[in-house]
Amino acid sequence: MTVHEKLAAEAPRHATDVPSDVAEIAPEHPEPGSLDSAALQDALLGAWAEDRRTARALVRDPRLHRDPLLGMDEHRERVLGQLGVLVENGAVHRMFPKEFGGDDNHGGNIAAFADLVLGDPSLQIKAGVQWGLFAAAILHLGTEEHHRRWLPGAMDLSVPGAFAMTEIGHGSDVASIGTTATYDEAAGEFVIHTPFKGAWKDYLGNAALHGRAATVFAQLITKGVNHGVHCFYVPIRDEDGAFLPGIGGEDDGLKGGLNGIDNGRLHFDQVRVPRTNLLNRYGDVAEDGTYSSPIESPGRRFFTMLGTLVQGRVSLSLAATTASFLGLHGAIAYGEQRRQFNASDPEREEVLLDYQNHQRRLVDRLARAYADAFASNELLERFDGVFSGRADSDADRQELETLAAAIKPLATWNALDTLQETREACGGAGFMARNRIPQMRADLDVYVTFEGDNNVLLQLVGKRLLTDYSHEFGRLNVGAVSRYVVAQASDAIHRAGLHKAVQSVSDGGSERRSANWFKDPEVQRDLLTDRVRAKTADIASTLAGVRGKTQAEQAAAFNTRQHELIEVARNQGELLQWEAFTRAVEATRDESTRTVLTWLRNLFALRVLEEDLGWLVAHGRLSSQRARSLRGYVNRLAERLRPFALELVEAFGLEPEHLRMDIATQAEAERQAEAHAWFEARRAAGEEPEDEKAVRAREKATRGRRG
Amino acid sequence: MTVHEKLAAEAPRHATDVPSDVAEIAPEHPEPGSLDSAALQDALLGAWAEDRRTARALVRDPRLHRDPLLGMDEHRERVLGQLGVLVENGAVHRMFPKEFGGDDNHGGNIAAFADLVLGDPSLQIKAGVQWGLFAAAILHLGTEEHHRRWLPGAMDLSVPGAFAMTEIGHGSDVASIGTTATYDEAAGEFVIHTPFKGAWKDYLGNAALHGRAATVFAQLITKGVNHGVHCFYVPIRDEDGAFLPGIGGEDDGLKGGLNGIDNGRLHFDQVRVPRTNLLNRYGDVAEDGTYSSPIESPGRRFFTMLGTLVQGRVSLSLAATTASFLGLHGAIAYGEQRRQFNASDPEREEVLLDYQNHQRRLVDRLARAYADAFASNELLERFDGVFSGRADSDADRQELETLAAAIKPLATWNALDTLQETREACGGAGFMARNRIPQMRADLDVYVTFEGDNNVLLQLVGKRLLTDYSHEFGRLNVGAVSRYVVAQASDAIHRAGLHKAVQSVSDGGSERRSANWFKDPEVQRDLLTDRVRAKTADIASTLAGVRGKTQAEQAAAFNTRQHELIEVARNQGELLQWEAFTRAVEATRDESTRTVLTWLRNLFALRVLEEDLGWLVAHGRLSSQRARSLRGYVNRLAERLRPFALELVEAFGLEPEHLRMDIATQAEAERQAEAHAWFEARRAAGEEPEDEKAVRAREKATRGRRG
Repeated sequence: MTVHEKLAAEAPRHATDVPSDVAEIAPEHPEPGSLDSAALQDALLGAWAEDRRTARALVRDPRLHRDPLLGMDEHRERVLGQLGVLVENGAVHRMFPKEFGGDDNHGGNIAAFADLVLGDPSLQIKAGVQWGLFAAAILHLGTEEHHRRWLPGAMDLSVPGAFAMTEIGHGSDVASIGTTATYDEAAGEFVIHTPFKGAWKDYLGNAALHGRAATVFAQLITKGVNHGVHCFYVPIRDEDGAFLPGIGGEDDGLKGGLNGIDNGRLHFDQVRVPRTNLLNRYGDVAEDGTYSSPIESPGRRFFTMLGTLVQGRVSLSLAATTASFLGLHGAIAYGEQRRQFNASDPEREEVLLDYQNHQRRLVDRLARAYADAFASNELLERFDGVFSGRADSDADRQELETLAAAIKPLATWNALDTLQETREACGGAGFMARNRIPQMRADLDVYVTFEGDNNVLLQLVGKRLLTDYSHEFGRLNVGAVSRYVVAQASDAIHRAGLHKAVQSVSDGGSERRSANWFKDPEVQRDLLTDRVRAKTADIASTLAGVRGKTQAEQAAAFNTRQHELIEVARNQGELLQWEAFTRAVEATRDESTRTVLTWLRNLFALRVLEEDLGWLVAHGRLSSQRARSLRGYVNRLAERLRPFALELVEAFGLEPEHLRMDIATQAEAERQAEAHAWFEARRAAGEEPEDEKAVRAREKATRGRRG
Repeated sequence: MTVHEKLAAEAPRHATDVPSDVAEIAPEHPEPGSLDSAALQDALLGAWAEDRRTARALVRDPRLHRDPLLGMDEHRERVLGQLGVLVENGAVHRMFPKEFGGDDNHGGNIAAFADLVLGDPSLQIKAGVQWGLFAAAILHLGTEEHHRRWLPGAMDLSVPGAFAMTEIGHGSDVASIGTTATYDEAAGEFVIHTPFKGAWKDYLGNAALHGRAATVFAQLITKGVNHGVHCFYVPIRDEDGAFLPGIGGEDDGLKGGLNGIDNGRLHFDQVRVPRTNLLNRYGDVAEDGTYSSPIESPGRRFFTMLGTLVQGRVSLSLAATTASFLGLHGAIAYGEQRRQFNASDPEREEVLLDYQNHQRRLVDRLARAYADAFASNELLERFDGVFSGRADSDADRQELETLAAAIKPLATWNALDTLQETREACGGAGFMARNRIPQMRADLDVYVTFEGDNNVLLQLVGKRLLTDYSHEFGRLNVGAVSRYVVAQASDAIHRAGLHKAVQSVSDGGSERRSANWFKDPEVQRDLLTDRVRAKTADIASTLAGVRGKTQAEQAAAFNTRQHELIEVARNQGELLQWEAFTRAVEATRDESTRTVLTWLRNLFALRVLEEDLGWLVAHGRLSSQRARSLRGYVNRLAERLRPFALELVEAFGLEPEHLRMDIATQAEAERQAEAHAWFEARRAAGEEPEDEKAVRAREKATRGRRG
């Protein structure tokens, strides 16, 4: 709150001059500085706010901060050391069972883990590799004996481990990996083998240097049958760090970011491990080679095993949101201090945030960051429900998967966009490493393709929408959509759903009536919901047209709508964000705070609609007149929120030790004050040279009088 | 052409299966591999293709390549050494007068300079600082004696120099810089002084370490009058690299990119230079302190002096375009080889570029990169016209300024977007430094805010549009727009301009007729032109409403439309790109090549319209029915172009030594072939284990028969 308090005295009071269209719902306009920051912070930090505050307190420690000048090798060593600090502080064991020193606290674990991004994203992700992937695989895919043997070493970092799933040839399509684990009955061992270069494991954190063991995913083959992908615990290096026999690898070297992590490749040449190294919770092989599993369907078994990966997606959604707030905090604090160009006053330049374009660049994105935060928090609650066992039916798990597949792409892409825009909004200062934004962006870049490529995840959401829509449409069986269902539903959408939209479409040209309509949450909900349903129905009709055709024909038809399917999945994610945002608004008790939060939710909603205006108008959801009035209303919303921008971004609770940015200090305000005082003093002393333009004007006037 | 030739044999032949709506204009569909690559390359490289080829040949030299593992200090030294290589090869002197060993070749100089980005963007920009800014200031702002004294040292790098214009407190608003140069009549010297911290020069290449002199911009004060910003030649370091008396500075340290350049700060404490160190082409001070200038108006004088900066904007447009092609070359080559997910064939995974979404990600951006190239080439020609003196009237110079202010923002933002999308399209591989895209993106990041912040430049374009529109609207005098002109023009736009659009709006629901309409270049031109005119008129009407009001009221009114003004400036840039693209299509002789280039231009145009669909429909420029058909047509265009994608990107002529990316080699194709052969061999030998799903299906069938 430091920067805000200092600026509060001279904060602009734009909101008092509001357009008439809001006067009726908010007769008493909130004053900047009057928001209930503590309540906002609780809402932003979610159900595990205390775990996050603990993590944030820890990450104030300079030992956990990134030093951007370190070369790759030194950065890797530093981050390994930082993992040790986490262990010392018991910061990474919340998710593990109490008997191993953990807390059985899944939600709090992820919440706390995500905020490590404030120290260094490499630290966050390397911790994620060690505890969220390697140790978690032992925990979730192994059974009691495995836990006893391997969890302690994984937890206390005495055995750094790699999570060997991805291969050079297969990332998101895990089912197609090439590594094999063939059971040798005579020896009672599995033989782990890499048959070709494309099956080399790749991009694995801890693989290049530090890993002593790996949880290796491979096709389990016994008695001539491939039972699909299973996970094996495989020691890979000896005490001296040398590869064990049959194991080789390569260093991935420098990357676009996250260079504190030693990503690398691994390959296996007929490497033998005991039968009991199979992490056998969901599939086991008896001594005689007989395979058994508690889950009969190979497909469901595969997705259950992979389901443990969802925590990565949840944590990335949260971490990306934290990064968005970091960038916004810096750019908004700077935008409140920096002045540039004389617009309204020849004596004093304009504050950047008073420019409309600057408001649209930053306040719009602040609204979206709030949406990201609320949606990520709801995702985390659902995750905790499933992993704690409180709500872990098949339906719950599927719901969680879909939610994560919708929220993670949006939150991570939004973070990259926000970091870029905030960097540009600070000009050259934004490009300096001392202001951290470019490095943060570089590190987060890969968040959009790892732990599930965003475009692939959105297709999962899209397929789920189609499934839900038709109730007959199977995961890959695109032909199952009946024409009947599609035809019915398309009609239904035109008839119902948009009652509000249809009923009040004649605003008689009144911008005020139009604005009142746009800010009605039922209208927003209808528009956002209907958009998803209508696009889904339209795509389903294409697929229904190839029902019963060959796989190739069905795939070709599907491919003609792939781009739109991904779009509708994004739209669904935006709807989920809107719903989470609206619940957060409704839960807010303080009236001023709720009013401002409502404006912010409206800004989020209307920006989303503005981006898809063509579809909305062309498909009759918005009249042309309303569409034309939307931009002005969005502009005014951003302007109305502008005096609250710093307060709203500070509510996220980042402290100077988290920010570590020049632009978030008072440095620019001090420079502005110094320059202003210098000019004032010179004018007062009569030392200011006259401007040539003024001299010329005076001379001209003199000549005029003479002539 | 290597990758393409190797792949040509197995290239997909999607284009033979085209939708019926194109059959009539292109009865003979071009075959992939049939394009006139040489003609395409000539068109892409523009009027100074030979200078670019010379530069590209030079930049194949490994000494000029970036080593991404170097730390900041080593990188800076390497780049300084690279400048020496440029001097040795006479690669940077084309723009200078013949008497100093140059070539008087302005266009060729910028064309060649821009392609240095292929070696290392730091090399390009540091060369830009030395020759394009420091030496160019001596050349363009100095007179004969200055040329003789200082050009040789600047040209041969014996005097590395900084271009000291930007200050901590002022970037784009150069007129407001705080540094003063006060003439001391008694001593016959200028006193250069930094009055406060905000007036420290900042972000200057060569300032932190290597610079021996600087061209310093300061407010020229003599006889108590400030004559505005002028440029002075100021030695800053001695032979040992120590600051001269009164001069101090700071190292900017690590940045988000371009770390091969030693950016830094400079400040001056009453530093004295001889009167003759004023670069006095546009303004001089006599011994007695009398100021004189060949340009009477201080405003015009200022803009003339700054006009020499335009070459930076021209070169960034070209360099950014080259970077876009680099990313696209890698991602398209990889997208032709990489396979992922079994969609149409259970035995063989799909090639990435066969996915619709991948086409929309890459082919759309390839079309835009072509537009960037053609528009940048036209900008370069206009630049050469002005700087060679062939066409350098005031109107020419203004036209050049506006064109540069429109094209540079688009080309540089497009490059960042393209590099990001191509990196994501390659998944984890795209994030590896060995594939260069992330580092290239990091280096180019600052291109969008330096040499004129993109948002500021677009406002210049917007103001020019308003000026042109009203013929009465002055640069800052927003009140000068007459209501009359605005009212007339708005009507006129609705009556004329869109004749094609209005006349054929009833397609009777035929997608084919709609597609024919969209691909008509006159329709595209009308839509793109009218969009700019209508939005400009609308903004002008707001400004006309505050005619005669106070500066503050006018500024407030202007601010309510700032966001839209920047948008219309972008739209103007897109129109300029479309026109350049269309001229390039028309100049293409080979019929197949022209057909494919026409498709590409249509894709560019329709993507631009698709992004602004809401405006177009809400303002009656497109019927809802046409708007709904647009997406399908764009999808089909991208699909039709897909078989030509590699050929089109290779036509830009980047060779392996320029690309230096694993993804642009045959490595992935070889891995795919190896994996495929391994599975084939195992199947042939009967060694492939049976899939559990198949076993279960067989057992179920057996049970069924038994039952």
